[in-house]
Amino acid sequence: MISRVLAADVPQHVGERISIAGWLHRRRELKSVAFLIIRDRSGLAQVVLPPGTVAPGGEETVLQVEGLVVANAQAPGGAELTDPVLTALSGPAQPPPFDLYRPGVAATLPTILDHAPTTLRHAQLRAGFEVAAASAAGFRAALDELGFTEIFTPKIVESATEGGANVFAIDYFGRPAYLAQSPQFYKQAMVGVFERVYEVGPVFRAEPHDTARHLAQYTSLDAELGFIGDHFDVMPVCRDAVAGMVESVRKRGSDAMQQLSATLPEVPAEIPHVHFAEAMALFSSATSEDVSGEDDLSPAHERWLGEWAQREHGSDFLFVTGYPQSAKPFYTYPDRSRPGYTNGFDLLFRGSEIVTGGQRLHRHEDYLAALAERGLDPAPFAGYLQVFEHGMPPHGGFAVGLERFTARLTGATNVRQVTLFPRDLHRLSP
Amino acid sequence: MISRVLAADVPQHVGERISIAGWLHRRRELKSVAFLIIRDRSGLAQVVLPPGTVAPGGEETVLQVEGLVVANAQAPGGAELTDPVLTALSGPAQPPPFDLYRPGVAATLPTILDHAPTTLRHAQLRAGFEVAAASAAGFRAALDELGFTEIFTPKIVESATEGGANVFAIDYFGRPAYLAQSPQFYKQAMVGVFERVYEVGPVFRAEPHDTARHLAQYTSLDAELGFIGDHFDVMPVCRDAVAGMVESVRKRGSDAMQQLSATLPEVPAEIPHVHFAEAMALFSSATSEDVSGEDDLSPAHERWLGEWAQREHGSDFLFVTGYPQSAKPFYTYPDRSRPGYTNGFDLLFRGSEIVTGGQRLHRHEDYLAALAERGLDPAPFAGYLQVFEHGMPPHGGFAVGLERFTARLTGATNVRQVTLFPRDLHRLSP
Repeated sequence: MISRVLAADVPQHVGERISIAGWLHRRRELKSVAFLIIRDRSGLAQVVLPPGTVAPGGEETVLQVEGLVVANAQAPGGAELTDPVLTALSGPAQPPPFDLYRPGVAATLPTILDHAPTTLRHAQLRAGFEVAAASAAGFRAALDELGFTEIFTPKIVESATEGGANVFAIDYFGRPAYLAQSPQFYKQAMVGVFERVYEVGPVFRAEPHDTARHLAQYTSLDAELGFIGDHFDVMPVCRDAVAGMVESVRKRGSDAMQQLSATLPEVPAEIPHVHFAEAMALFSSATSEDVSGEDDLSPAHERWLGEWAQREHGSDFLFVTGYPQSAKPFYTYPDRSRPGYTNGFDLLFRGSEIVTGGQRLHRHEDYLAALAERGLDPAPFAGYLQVFEHGMPPHGGFAVGLERFTARLTGATNVRQVTLFPRDLHRLSP
Repeated sequence: MISRVLAADVPQHVGERISIAGWLHRRRELKSVAFLIIRDRSGLAQVVLPPGTVAPGGEETVLQVEGLVVANAQAPGGAELTDPVLTALSGPAQPPPFDLYRPGVAATLPTILDHAPTTLRHAQLRAGFEVAAASAAGFRAALDELGFTEIFTPKIVESATEGGANVFAIDYFGRPAYLAQSPQFYKQAMVGVFERVYEVGPVFRAEPHDTARHLAQYTSLDAELGFIGDHFDVMPVCRDAVAGMVESVRKRGSDAMQQLSATLPEVPAEIPHVHFAEAMALFSSATSEDVSGEDDLSPAHERWLGEWAQREHGSDFLFVTGYPQSAKPFYTYPDRSRPGYTNGFDLLFRGSEIVTGGQRLHRHEDYLAALAERGLDPAPFAGYLQVFEHGMPPHGGFAVGLERFTARLTGATNVRQVTLFPRDLHRLSP
């Protein structure tokens, strides 16, 4: 390893000659003295240049600097390197699309995305990805604690069964195949093996909507568990998974959250819940808008309900339960006591849906009936249906969209800000 | 949640009436008494049936059993349920393709794979996936400890740049695109942002080889780090990642390993290494085989070297370093002191390659020269090459194939035994 002290540790070495290595974050030339600021994964370190010394490259060039550590209250961390010997570890860097050392981001989203390998080095842009990494780790840790097993399922599937038209077709050794829109069928099947499973992986939607919250590929945090009574047994597990994500960001991402001036929510021990029909009635009576015939929440409904949850329950989170059958996939368990409604739920976070879930059908005959009711041919579902002939317990689950969760947590207004190299209708590179 | 005590906890409730729930693992009818064995994620529990009682379904039907716990030294765990009330939670199950309650697996691999949602319930088949889950968790934990950041990169890419013909083509909103064969370019780019990154995710190879170790989709455990001197700084990190995987299996998968009669290796603090040329010379002098012109290890070479490492170093692991340039991709850093060889390495585990890695080029001009030397047009690499114009430190990394690692660890002779719903030349379902 290149022998080096990390920038954050420099102040511990006052009086010693050490080496640091990192990117030339900034050159500052004053009348009588010049400084280099070196950036590495731990932070920034200041180097004092003797008059006449020139750095071997502009900002973003990678340098190793050997020097004597001297205390200086003005320097980051209270110490700086003097009497430096500079060695370039890369060629001179081309200037980045905007000044990465400035506190703000002086670039539009397309510029940021086109030059992501460079622009994401900016502390404010990088921070979102630190929050995402911490969130995913927290999801896994919470479910590990609850006896879940991690699975890895196929992303190439034989038939486009799940969501109609929004699938990507692939040429599979000369045969047609499709990219999986979710691990739904596989995670259900694996409840039969492990009872409780989760998967963190990419899902693919040939999403024709060009919005701030749709992507052609996103990271889905999926969980499924057996031996439930109904969806009210899934919701506490969902709550624990989300609480684990928030807790992990508190532990591992607090610098990043501070960088983004974002605040972490409290996750209530029991997240408040409201039935879809009641939610619509509340919205309608407050706004005098006609909501008859609505079977799903619009972004406006979600925003209003987010404010309502904050006002009524002091909660950033709200479960909306019992979605109408027409808004939920065929495998959703119906609410036998309330025809037309289901045991499906969504979780809103600060007025935006970040989780969808519910109880699923688990009896073979119920699947046949549900497909018939929707006029769907059971043939393409043969492999899936077979699972339910071999003894499946009552079960349910949920999926968190990592990018939407991260965006909501960090205040990003577009999921692309917290997606590494996003894919959408228009964007296929870098 | 369905109120239940897990099977493993039944013996703690002697004298109480409790409920358990799980799959009817086995019915045993003796002359004067009948037993049901119930299986859940924690283990097995025995239920004594009063004469004349019939279970509501055959093996694999999901049951809830309420009963009085009575000590019985012959029962699993020393206790059993008597005076039971049985409730079916699923419909009567169709018989599985083979008896899941027998210790051995009486089915061929195609049968196992065709009926995976049912067959993987067998303790011996399920065990491999517990080992895989523990391995992936160990990889992440070891790298988290070393300051790595987890990333999630695109699986849909614009050009089939990395590995020639073995790519899957997809229809991307009417444009051609491809499934990523590895996160190589993205993980390198992110070294510029985080210094140290890893990704656990699917990679895709349109692999025309129908062998016991090739898959069209597998789970790649990828890592990349900056500020190295050369590949000898990557190898200890690779060692730590693999040691973390083994340690995690020791902690979380020891029952599964026992189920498979598999033994965990010791990972030496420093894994022995041998240069490719020396490895070939050793093989040749031991076997009198001509190895001139060979630029890669065949399975036979790997096996022989595995035995050699065990004999000479008492190690299940061996790094082979310095692979010839012709066997390694264009981004591999050349060994300046030994023309024709590189700073690429593989890690053999029990005589089989499970990791490939190396130092990469990090200077823009070196990339242009390397592409020119191989007669490759730089145009499709434009986005990738741009990364190296903006200051990239010397870096390298490695990738572990999760299925190959798990197969080697558990003694599986075919990677499909430890792959959930494998994809290959012939198999696209379930």
